[in-house]
Amino acid sequence: MREDLLRRLHREIEAKHCENILHMLTSLHPADIAELMEHLDTHERRFLLSIMDTDLIADVLPHLSDDILVDILHYLDIERLSEVVPKMEADQVADLLQELPKVDRSTLLSHLPLDSIREIESLSQYPEHSAGGIMTTEYIALPYWMKIDEAIQTLRQKASKLRDVGYIYVVDDTNRLRGVLPLKRLILGESNKTLGELMDTEILAVDPLEDQEAVAKLMQKYDLLAIPVVNKDGKLLGIVTADKAMEVLEQETEEDLFHLTGLEKEESVFTPTLSAVRNRLPWILFSLLTTLLSSNIVRIFRHTLEKAIALTMFMPIVAAIGGNVGMQTLTVVVRSLSLGEITAVDILAIFWRQFVIAGLLGALVGIAGFIEAIIIFQVGVNVATVVGLALWANIIGASIFGLFVPLLFKKLGIDPALAASPFILILIDCVGYTTLLGLGTLMLIK
Amino acid sequence: MREDLLRRLHREIEAKHCENILHMLTSLHPADIAELMEHLDTHERRFLLSIMDTDLIADVLPHLSDDILVDILHYLDIERLSEVVPKMEADQVADLLQELPKVDRSTLLSHLPLDSIREIESLSQYPEHSAGGIMTTEYIALPYWMKIDEAIQTLRQKASKLRDVGYIYVVDDTNRLRGVLPLKRLILGESNKTLGELMDTEILAVDPLEDQEAVAKLMQKYDLLAIPVVNKDGKLLGIVTADKAMEVLEQETEEDLFHLTGLEKEESVFTPTLSAVRNRLPWILFSLLTTLLSSNIVRIFRHTLEKAIALTMFMPIVAAIGGNVGMQTLTVVVRSLSLGEITAVDILAIFWRQFVIAGLLGALVGIAGFIEAIIIFQVGVNVATVVGLALWANIIGASIFGLFVPLLFKKLGIDPALAASPFILILIDCVGYTTLLGLGTLMLIK
Repeated sequence: MREDLLRRLHREIEAKHCENILHMLTSLHPADIAELMEHLDTHERRFLLSIMDTDLIADVLPHLSDDILVDILHYLDIERLSEVVPKMEADQVADLLQELPKVDRSTLLSHLPLDSIREIESLSQYPEHSAGGIMTTEYIALPYWMKIDEAIQTLRQKASKLRDVGYIYVVDDTNRLRGVLPLKRLILGESNKTLGELMDTEILAVDPLEDQEAVAKLMQKYDLLAIPVVNKDGKLLGIVTADKAMEVLEQETEEDLFHLTGLEKEESVFTPTLSAVRNRLPWILFSLLTTLLSSNIVRIFRHTLEKAIALTMFMPIVAAIGGNVGMQTLTVVVRSLSLGEITAVDILAIFWRQFVIAGLLGALVGIAGFIEAIIIFQVGVNVATVVGLALWANIIGASIFGLFVPLLFKKLGIDPALAASPFILILIDCVGYTTLLGLGTLMLIK
Repeated sequence: MREDLLRRLHREIEAKHCENILHMLTSLHPADIAELMEHLDTHERRFLLSIMDTDLIADVLPHLSDDILVDILHYLDIERLSEVVPKMEADQVADLLQELPKVDRSTLLSHLPLDSIREIESLSQYPEHSAGGIMTTEYIALPYWMKIDEAIQTLRQKASKLRDVGYIYVVDDTNRLRGVLPLKRLILGESNKTLGELMDTEILAVDPLEDQEAVAKLMQKYDLLAIPVVNKDGKLLGIVTADKAMEVLEQETEEDLFHLTGLEKEESVFTPTLSAVRNRLPWILFSLLTTLLSSNIVRIFRHTLEKAIALTMFMPIVAAIGGNVGMQTLTVVVRSLSLGEITAVDILAIFWRQFVIAGLLGALVGIAGFIEAIIIFQVGVNVATVVGLALWANIIGASIFGLFVPLLFKKLGIDPALAASPFILILIDCVGYTTLLGLGTLMLIK
C-alpha cells in the first residue's frame, strides 16, 4: 500500500476533483485500485464508483474482498451491472453471481448473450470451494489429430484465451482430455506432426467436485502451474491455475488460524463494527456458558479454599499453563490434519509420542512450579507438592484433550480447528482446577 | 497419502525385498516417494536410501521436509552425496547446502564443475527468506535484438531449461532486463521481427533482497505465474515461480499460526519427542514466570477472598473470557498486519473501531454474566454486579492489549505474532483479576 496515494485519493474525493481522480486511476493496475478501495469508507467508495466507467469497474471487481463486493453490488443498479458483467470473464461472473440475490441474478443473466449464460451456468453449478468452483474456462483445447502448423494457425485466433499458462490441452472429438502439450514443445515440434504425437499422456487431472484445498495441495506437491478439471467421462471442463491455488492455500491456512481462535469468519481490522461483534460474540457467549463447568469445580472445593486460601494464588497459574499447552497441541494436530499428514496407520505411534512429550514437559514444568512455589510464594512443601503435581497432571490432560478432540472432530466430519472451542479449553481448565483443589483437599485438609 | 502403499512399504522393508521396493518406487512421482519417506522411521528410511540409486535420490531430496533432510544428509556419505548433487538444479543444491555443516559444504562443492559452483554460490549469497533465496536460475533469457526465428532455434537447444512458465526474458548485451515475452506471442510473431519489438516493456520485477512474503503477495495480487529478480543495475538474476510463491505464502501464514500459539518452529505430530519438548518448553516456562504477576494480584486480594469466598468461583470465568477475547483480537490484528492491510493513515480509525467493538461485546457479555451469576450461581445482586462489571472491563482491556501490543511489536521490528506471548495473555488475566477482586473489595467489603 502506498500511503501517499491513499492520502491523495482521500483529498481528491473530498474535493470531488473527478478528472484528477480518473487520471490517477488510469495509471494504476486494477488490483491496486481494488486495494485503495478497501481503505475508503462506504461514502467515498460509492462516489468513486459513480465516476468510474464500466470497463474499469469490470477490471476492478474480481480483485475486491467479499465484504466490499457485496456493498458495491447493492449500490450498483442492475442496468449499470449489466453493462459491467459482459466485460468480465465467465468464471469471474460466476463468482460474482454468488453474492447477488436470486432475483437480481436472473435479471442480470437476461442481459447476456446465450453462450455466455450457458458457460456461466455450467460454472455456477459447482460448490464454491470445489475444483469446479475455482476453475476457469480460459484455456485452449485442440483435437489430438490436429497438425502443429494448423494448431499454430488456430492459436492466432484464440490467442486472447490463452493465459500465461504454458500448456495446450489436447482432446478427442467428444472433448475427452487425451493429453497435455507444453507450449515449448509446440514451438519446437515439426510442423507436420500431430498434437497427439507430441503431447504428454501422463496427465494429472481432478474431478470438479474435488475439494479446493486438495486441488491446491496437489498442485503444490507436483509443482504444477495449472491442472485440468475433467468429469467422470473424462471430458475437459476447465483448468485451475496456480494463482487461484495460491489464494486457496492461504485462505485455508487462514481459516485454520481464525477457527482456532474462535472466529467464524475471517475478519480484518476494517470489518464493520456490527459484523465483528456478530463474528466474535457466539464464541464468547459459548465460553461464558462452558465456564460454568470450571466455576462449579471451584464451587465444589469452596470449603477447601476457605481452609487453604493459599491455593487461590495458584489457580491462575494452572489455568494459564493448561490453556497454553492445550493450544500448542491443538495447533500442531490441526495443521498436521489439514496437511493430510496423519494416516490411520500412524495413530497409535502419534498417541504414544504425544503422551511422552506431555509427560516430559509436565515433569519439567512441575518441578519448576514446585521450586517457584517454595522460593517465591514461600509456601510449605505440602502446598508446593500439590502445585507441582497439579501442573504435571494438567499438562498431560491438556495434551491428551488437544490431541484427541481434533482427531475425533475429523472423524465426525467437523472442522478440527473448531476443536479449539471454549468447551475444550474449559475441559482443560477443569483438569487443572480438579487436580489442584482435589490434591489440595487430599493432602492439606484433614 | 495412500495408506495401502505405506503399509506395503513397511512390510517390504521389514522383509528386505529390495527388488519389490524398487519396482514400487519407479511407478511413483518423486514427491510421492518423499511423502512416503516422511512416514518411515529413521531405520526404515536409511534402509530405503541405501538401495535407491543416485538419480532417484536427486529427484526426491528437494521434496523432503527440513527435519528429514538433515537426517538424510547426515547419513549419506560425502562420496554418495557428490554423485547426487550434480544431478540436481542449482537452486535446489543451494537450498540443500544450507543444511550441511561448512566442512561438508566445501568438500561437496569441490566435486562439481566450475560453472555450477559459480551459479550455486551466487544463489547461496542471498538470505534464505529473500527473493534471491527462493529464485531459480532455470529460465531463458535472450537478447532484445534477436529475430523470432533465431530465438526459436536457440530455444531448441535450451528447451530443457524452460520450465512450464510461459515467458521468455528479454535482456540487453549486459544482461539488463528489458522486457518479458509471453511464449504465445513468440509462436504468433512474424519470424523476421525482433524480440524487442514484441516484448512487454511494463515489467514487474523484484530486488533479490526483497522479503519472500512480499514477493509472493505481489505475485498473488497481480496473478503472476513468475516474477523476475533483478539487481540494482537492472541485471536479471533469476525468476521466482508460482509454485515457490505458493509454498512461501502457506509457510508464512503457518508461521503466524504457530507463533500465535507459542511454537517457535513449525511442528508436526511426527516431530521427534525431544525437538517437540524443546520447541514447546520455553513458552510454557516463560508462561510459568509471567503467571507470577496474576498470582500476585490474587495474593494481594487474599483477604477479600477470605471474606467473600464466592468470588473465587468467578475467577475461572474472568480468566477464560479475557483469554478468548485477547486471542481473537490478536489474531485479527496479526493477520491484518501480515497482509499489509494496516497503514499509518488508518491507525486512529482502527483504534476507535476496535474500542467500540470491545465496548459493545463487553456490555453484552457483562449483562449475560450478571444474569448467569444471579440465576445459576444464586449470588446476590452485589456480587453479580461485580461479576458483570469485571467482565465488561476485562473484555475492553483484553481488546486494547490485543490491538496495541502487536502494533507496538511491528513498530519495533519484532514479529507481531509473537505478541501472543504469555506475557500479554497474563496482562489480560491481570486486568480481569484486578477488576473482579478490586471491585469486589470496593463493593462487598466494608
